[in-house]
Amino acid sequence: MVTTSRLIAAIAHCLPALPVCRSRRNCASRKSRKNSYSTENNMDGNAFLTEDAAFLNLQKYFQEKGKDLNIHQLFVQDPERFKKYSIKLATPQDGEILIDFSKNRVDAETFKLLLELAKSRKVQESRDAMFGGEKINFTENRAVLHTALRNRSSRPVLVDGVDVMPDVRAVLDHMKEFCSEVISGQWKGYTGKAITDVVNIGIGGSDLGPLMVTEALKAYSVGPNVHFVSNVDGTHIAVTLQKLNPETTLFIIASKTFTTQETITNAESAKAWFLEKAKDESAVAKHFVALSTNATKVRDFGINEKNMFGFWDWVGGRYSLWSAIGLSIALSIGFENFEKLLDGAYFMDQHFCESPLEQNVPVILALLGVLYGDFYGAETHALLPYDQYLHRFAAYFQQGDMESNGKYVTRSGRRVEYATGPVVWGEPGTNGQHAFYQLIHQGTRLIPADFIAPAQSLHPIRDKIHHKLLMANFLAQTEALMKGKSSDEAKAELLKSGMGEDDVRKILPHKVFEGNRPTNSIVVHKVTPFILGALIAMYEMKIFVQGIIWDINSFDQWGVELGKQLAKAIEPELEGSGEISSHDSSTNGLINFIKSNA
Amino acid sequence: MVTTSRLIAAIAHCLPALPVCRSRRNCASRKSRKNSYSTENNMDGNAFLTEDAAFLNLQKYFQEKGKDLNIHQLFVQDPERFKKYSIKLATPQDGEILIDFSKNRVDAETFKLLLELAKSRKVQESRDAMFGGEKINFTENRAVLHTALRNRSSRPVLVDGVDVMPDVRAVLDHMKEFCSEVISGQWKGYTGKAITDVVNIGIGGSDLGPLMVTEALKAYSVGPNVHFVSNVDGTHIAVTLQKLNPETTLFIIASKTFTTQETITNAESAKAWFLEKAKDESAVAKHFVALSTNATKVRDFGINEKNMFGFWDWVGGRYSLWSAIGLSIALSIGFENFEKLLDGAYFMDQHFCESPLEQNVPVILALLGVLYGDFYGAETHALLPYDQYLHRFAAYFQQGDMESNGKYVTRSGRRVEYATGPVVWGEPGTNGQHAFYQLIHQGTRLIPADFIAPAQSLHPIRDKIHHKLLMANFLAQTEALMKGKSSDEAKAELLKSGMGEDDVRKILPHKVFEGNRPTNSIVVHKVTPFILGALIAMYEMKIFVQGIIWDINSFDQWGVELGKQLAKAIEPELEGSGEISSHDSSTNGLINFIKSNA
Repeated sequence: MVTTSRLIAAIAHCLPALPVCRSRRNCASRKSRKNSYSTENNMDGNAFLTEDAAFLNLQKYFQEKGKDLNIHQLFVQDPERFKKYSIKLATPQDGEILIDFSKNRVDAETFKLLLELAKSRKVQESRDAMFGGEKINFTENRAVLHTALRNRSSRPVLVDGVDVMPDVRAVLDHMKEFCSEVISGQWKGYTGKAITDVVNIGIGGSDLGPLMVTEALKAYSVGPNVHFVSNVDGTHIAVTLQKLNPETTLFIIASKTFTTQETITNAESAKAWFLEKAKDESAVAKHFVALSTNATKVRDFGINEKNMFGFWDWVGGRYSLWSAIGLSIALSIGFENFEKLLDGAYFMDQHFCESPLEQNVPVILALLGVLYGDFYGAETHALLPYDQYLHRFAAYFQQGDMESNGKYVTRSGRRVEYATGPVVWGEPGTNGQHAFYQLIHQGTRLIPADFIAPAQSLHPIRDKIHHKLLMANFLAQTEALMKGKSSDEAKAELLKSGMGEDDVRKILPHKVFEGNRPTNSIVVHKVTPFILGALIAMYEMKIFVQGIIWDINSFDQWGVELGKQLAKAIEPELEGSGEISSHDSSTNGLINFIKSNA
Repeated sequence: MVTTSRLIAAIAHCLPALPVCRSRRNCASRKSRKNSYSTENNMDGNAFLTEDAAFLNLQKYFQEKGKDLNIHQLFVQDPERFKKYSIKLATPQDGEILIDFSKNRVDAETFKLLLELAKSRKVQESRDAMFGGEKINFTENRAVLHTALRNRSSRPVLVDGVDVMPDVRAVLDHMKEFCSEVISGQWKGYTGKAITDVVNIGIGGSDLGPLMVTEALKAYSVGPNVHFVSNVDGTHIAVTLQKLNPETTLFIIASKTFTTQETITNAESAKAWFLEKAKDESAVAKHFVALSTNATKVRDFGINEKNMFGFWDWVGGRYSLWSAIGLSIALSIGFENFEKLLDGAYFMDQHFCESPLEQNVPVILALLGVLYGDFYGAETHALLPYDQYLHRFAAYFQQGDMESNGKYVTRSGRRVEYATGPVVWGEPGTNGQHAFYQLIHQGTRLIPADFIAPAQSLHPIRDKIHHKLLMANFLAQTEALMKGKSSDEAKAELLKSGMGEDDVRKILPHKVFEGNRPTNSIVVHKVTPFILGALIAMYEMKIFVQGIIWDINSFDQWGVELGKQLAKAIEPELEGSGEISSHDSSTNGLINFIKSNA
């Protein structure tokens, strides 16, 4: 059923210049509503993935030929391979982004079949539904519009018939004003001193994004030092506060409901620490602000409501760094740079909306992930940035990816019979090379990996020698993973080193590299706020596309509820000295051990 | 063939009181050399894992019954389950360590068959070979004796007939003296000031262990601040040095060969930075020390040879934190605490050597990993410490585990046909709960997870409320992962919340938790140096046992060589402006893109 608000959204969406997603193709498909994505249609109309003809075609080809593809051979056979399987995106001011996906187990037929799968799964229609404000997060009855937060055009985005952009812009203006006051030193603490340190107290989406981005963009810092406290473990807040001065510290309490257990516990400890020195409750308003929508609780805490920055139910936690949750980012790098971050994400959104499937980077990355997860049986995906500033990039997308696509039920409620989201992991290169690359090269697991590298360093010290070594290592790894080293090559080397035949026989098998390990290489000119915004949006959209292909709701997270519920029951049992016997014998045993050792 | 030195080692090993590994059982088995482990025997005599009768028995039982085991049902059936499947280890002064492995898909028969597998794979004999100094790292012709570094008894450990303990103790004495000088302020920089900051420059094993441990034991810090620079990315050293003063900074250059590319590049940049201020080359000796065995290169760098701390070829990088590589740890927490770390590891070594298989914690943890990896097809293993101080614990064991067991060739050179080492990953709880636990609860991957928790916090702030919440969450997660939530339970909750039947039908499948997710819980009294040492050794030995079961050499790392080799070839190609065409089109394309953007 097409509701009125949806109709308005669809009309607005298909105006000659669309808010964010504006390709003619999308509008065309949108005209015939019965073919386009809607929760109902999809839940009723779409084939179960493993019964989808496009999936079956891919499976057939995989069995017949795909599974035996050797990437190195594909390069030998086709000198144009790099040209065919790489994409350059030209940004307005931040250079090109090169996405090289040629080092994958993909030939022309596989690529064609993958694109057909995307078509068959109605990826484009689903994308338009998301950008158009449909309530695709149907288990929570919410639209999914973090893209509106970075809609840098003047076009409206409608939710239930109402344009959300004025509110979005109002909060941005509020953030801008606040950042200006704090960074300039105009904002004073209770003893009249300017703010030197900001502590963001939040967890999950209210922590990982701001933390990752402020670390990644530390070279752009213009504001106070920013610290992050997330863990309910008292160690986290205690150690953070040790080095801070209450007179010059500003706390950002980031919790949409202002009830998140970890965040409120940490916020209360922060307030207690602050008041121990400040004594005066009224001073709280000068040192605490809230990223929340619960005005009552925020006021009760002692925060001035005008220092409350809101967001909306169509902003999921793991997509919230673009919202007021990004305040710590803006305080660190300045509001202008924060806007560039939004610009970069908008750039990628446009690419995602306007590019045909075969040139659509998020779509292609998503399809490759499906290929490895559902055909090659890969369980994990490695993110390997060759940039120390990006040291929390993989940790950030552990939430972004695993909380989105760690689901075993389709949108219509059927248990999947195929693999969905992977385990995401990784550490920066070259560190990882000296830690876990051994397993990627010579282990028994297939680990598709994305290498991310900047052509220019933000610290080109010693005539760029560090950066040249860094780049040489990045390049060599993708080459080595693909080519490997044959038994003949290894043998020749061992003999050349003077080793005897007997020893060679014994050692040789350990020196062989099978190769054929797939990688994507994503190379940017330099890590700038714009580029980082684009990279984050690229992965967000990749994850979105995979969720569509797997037919799961990537936007809820019911899987985190049960643990919270059971924790509530256990909390009171940890008080007092009585022995606990209300659980299974293991949980009882653990509780009683902890109590007797507490 | 039993060499003379091996014979001496074996005799020394079987004296009534053995150096480290001294159980009567081991000595008995050792008497009949033909049954005991030796590289040759194993390579010739041991069955291929999937042809081993014990493995086949396990496989048969798994197919018939094991694969359908439900952990929750096992608890319902047997009220004594926790008692049967948990072990308490009493430490001399640091309380008990509880290892609860009852929440696994293991019944009595599975457990029995697993233990038989360990016997069949000659785990005990292999253990004795390692502790006895045999050259079990046969591809590099080296003994594996990091256990000698923490041999806290007066007994000798022989390598090639020579007791290594006097050298081990001499280096420890050297470290003790040096730590005392630096911590007391007696050691002066070139302007006569005491040292306030230490920068450890190393990578892989020369970085991850010291970094993880100094972070984990920060509450015990008595010495200077310790920083770590590992990545060749110039950002790492540049950002670290920004906040330091050359007059009060001490650099530790950690590289056995003193040729590790990343480390030497960073060391040279550190020296350049230092000399920019100090001007005088002779001042280098007051601010740089080396953890290395290459005296010539160390001298050439400007380091005084008496400030060189050595170790030996039988110390693998990923097991080296117990050696001079631990100097940064000792400078941070003091030498006495460093010794307690060694004591804890020795305690676990003794447990490993003396306990029968069915009570042997590292053996049991190893067998469980084999069960999930080789029968259930799990590709990963999650390490989830509920302690913010342990935030790099998983990253440390990414190297410890994946570099050790990421191998696809058996010791005799045959390609394995079974899964070996897993991908290790994880972040501290409760943070992980708000990031990736969704996938563990409701994803399609089976992720065996170890929960690690201290009964007491090092920061019991606000009357322990933080710690109670932390513990409640840890406990609830293992319970939730095991029990899940049935469709009936979820339905009752939804109806009780007032949801209509139609909506319930739509939402219900998303609210169901299958449960039956396996976990180990490892609970300690408190995180102390001793306890941390014991935990690290526990995982080291677990990894060792798995390598033995899989019949791989856990001690080499040839898989890291190819990338290094190819990087050397690419380095000069990044110079100059010419277009590169010597590689596959992808590597060429990437090189040329980087050059044109540099």
